[in-house]
Amino acid sequence: MFAKLCRPVPSINFRTAKCFYKPRQLNKFYNIIARANCSASSSFLCDKNVIFVAGLGDIGLDTSKELLKRDLKNLVILDRVDKPELVCELKELNPKVKVTFMPYDVTVPLAESKKLLKKIFDKLKCVDILINGAGILDDHKIEATIAVNYTGLVNTTTAIMDFWDIRKGGPGGIICNIGSVTGFNPITQVPVYSGSKAAVVNFTSSLAKLAHITGVTAYTVNPGITRTSLVAKFNSWLDVEPDVAELLLEHPTQSTKECAASFVKAIEKNKNGGLWFLDQGILEDIKWDKHWDPCI
Amino acid sequence: MFAKLCRPVPSINFRTAKCFYKPRQLNKFYNIIARANCSASSSFLCDKNVIFVAGLGDIGLDTSKELLKRDLKNLVILDRVDKPELVCELKELNPKVKVTFMPYDVTVPLAESKKLLKKIFDKLKCVDILINGAGILDDHKIEATIAVNYTGLVNTTTAIMDFWDIRKGGPGGIICNIGSVTGFNPITQVPVYSGSKAAVVNFTSSLAKLAHITGVTAYTVNPGITRTSLVAKFNSWLDVEPDVAELLLEHPTQSTKECAASFVKAIEKNKNGGLWFLDQGILEDIKWDKHWDPCI
Repeated sequence: MFAKLCRPVPSINFRTAKCFYKPRQLNKFYNIIARANCSASSSFLCDKNVIFVAGLGDIGLDTSKELLKRDLKNLVILDRVDKPELVCELKELNPKVKVTFMPYDVTVPLAESKKLLKKIFDKLKCVDILINGAGILDDHKIEATIAVNYTGLVNTTTAIMDFWDIRKGGPGGIICNIGSVTGFNPITQVPVYSGSKAAVVNFTSSLAKLAHITGVTAYTVNPGITRTSLVAKFNSWLDVEPDVAELLLEHPTQSTKECAASFVKAIEKNKNGGLWFLDQGILEDIKWDKHWDPCI
Repeated sequence: MFAKLCRPVPSINFRTAKCFYKPRQLNKFYNIIARANCSASSSFLCDKNVIFVAGLGDIGLDTSKELLKRDLKNLVILDRVDKPELVCELKELNPKVKVTFMPYDVTVPLAESKKLLKKIFDKLKCVDILINGAGILDDHKIEATIAVNYTGLVNTTTAIMDFWDIRKGGPGGIICNIGSVTGFNPITQVPVYSGSKAAVVNFTSSLAKLAHITGVTAYTVNPGITRTSLVAKFNSWLDVEPDVAELLLEHPTQSTKECAASFVKAIEKNKNGGLWFLDQGILEDIKWDKHWDPCI
């Protein structure tokens, strides 16, 4: 049974890790890998402390609700705007889970992100999963799109490494980054947004391959077109297609509830390096082409 | 005789030539080179007005020199720091080409980019090609990496659309964006940089598909590991690999001259949507996987 659950994680080179790490570090490392491999079950989220950036957002809110069907220990929601009525609603969904809200704008400087995370770690002692879910879709706003979708995600990730990095004595951790199918192939009418999501996909694939060094595993969840307020109306780049939202919605889409269900399934699969494609009930780990190899 | 002249011109060291030939001989020499260039495949660049952002950079400088083997009409170099001795050197390479330098930091707001471009368009009347070549490689500097490599490139591209977009009565134009092989598959030790380059690749592929609306075609040139000062020493993300530069350079790399030769060949091929892979003399148009299609 154990062997069945513990499939090898291909993206991690155990042999190389063994050459460079002390036994104590290696033990931590193996535990992390074991966790990553052995956890594709619905009990995976039990008793976990989860930070969810943008957990009140369009996809975020339904994903928070889906998470609360599991008996997490803590769900710390960070979002730009407090919506007390939504936080109350979430708190009532599962009394076993402690739901907390803290305001957070991902575009603050790295030092601010670290301060906020310190508060959370001081309180909870350990955090198991960070979900980076902040995103905007408006190609009239170039700086904001890139700052929120990419820079903010990188900064939040970088900030949590202070607490998780096994090289600093941390316990490791799991990062779940929200990419988008547009990171694979763009919606050409929103090139700025699509590019920012390609950055997230590429960035996260690196994080996964650095897990043997940092102890932090990572994957992306990449929703297809989801019927959110984000998608109901948005600006295309230089208005190349004023009706882009309407055109997209003419094709099959998924509801935020469907998206949330796949989202949490992906979290439960906990596959380091996973490139999860989430669309209309499909949850598929995309295989990325190798065009080039740096050989290091 | 004509065919004989049209052979590709081998790389010629003009500075050395200048030491051995009198001006009259030198002019003859230039004319022969120019004729050879203009009658072979390289005639594409003849009489063109080209703006080259970061045309004095590591890859930029050698690419500027390679461009100057062709009889452009104007080469306007925009770079953060003026290096008058390099600009002088470039001006002397081909007296038929008017080489101009103007200071430009790609991280300025969009309005500033537009102002600068207005000056250039006022002077030249038309611009045929914009090469976006600014880039930094330092994963300690998250904001700067993303601001230069992605946001700056998007802003410069967006700024020039005021002058080129056929919907505004413009004549169209050609955008050549510098991506990187790390935009295809990352150097995991520099995830922030690699992600920013993935953004460029994805963004530019959208521009190409919008050409029927804007009149502006686009492609990326994506150099492999090139022996520049950028690569000689750089910081990995959170120092995950302090020796990343040394490790990379243990494998085959290309010189900036080799890179520049392929770079200009790619420009001459002028393929809308080209995803040019440039490494050690190889120039290949990468085929991107279709994982998903927005159907619009």
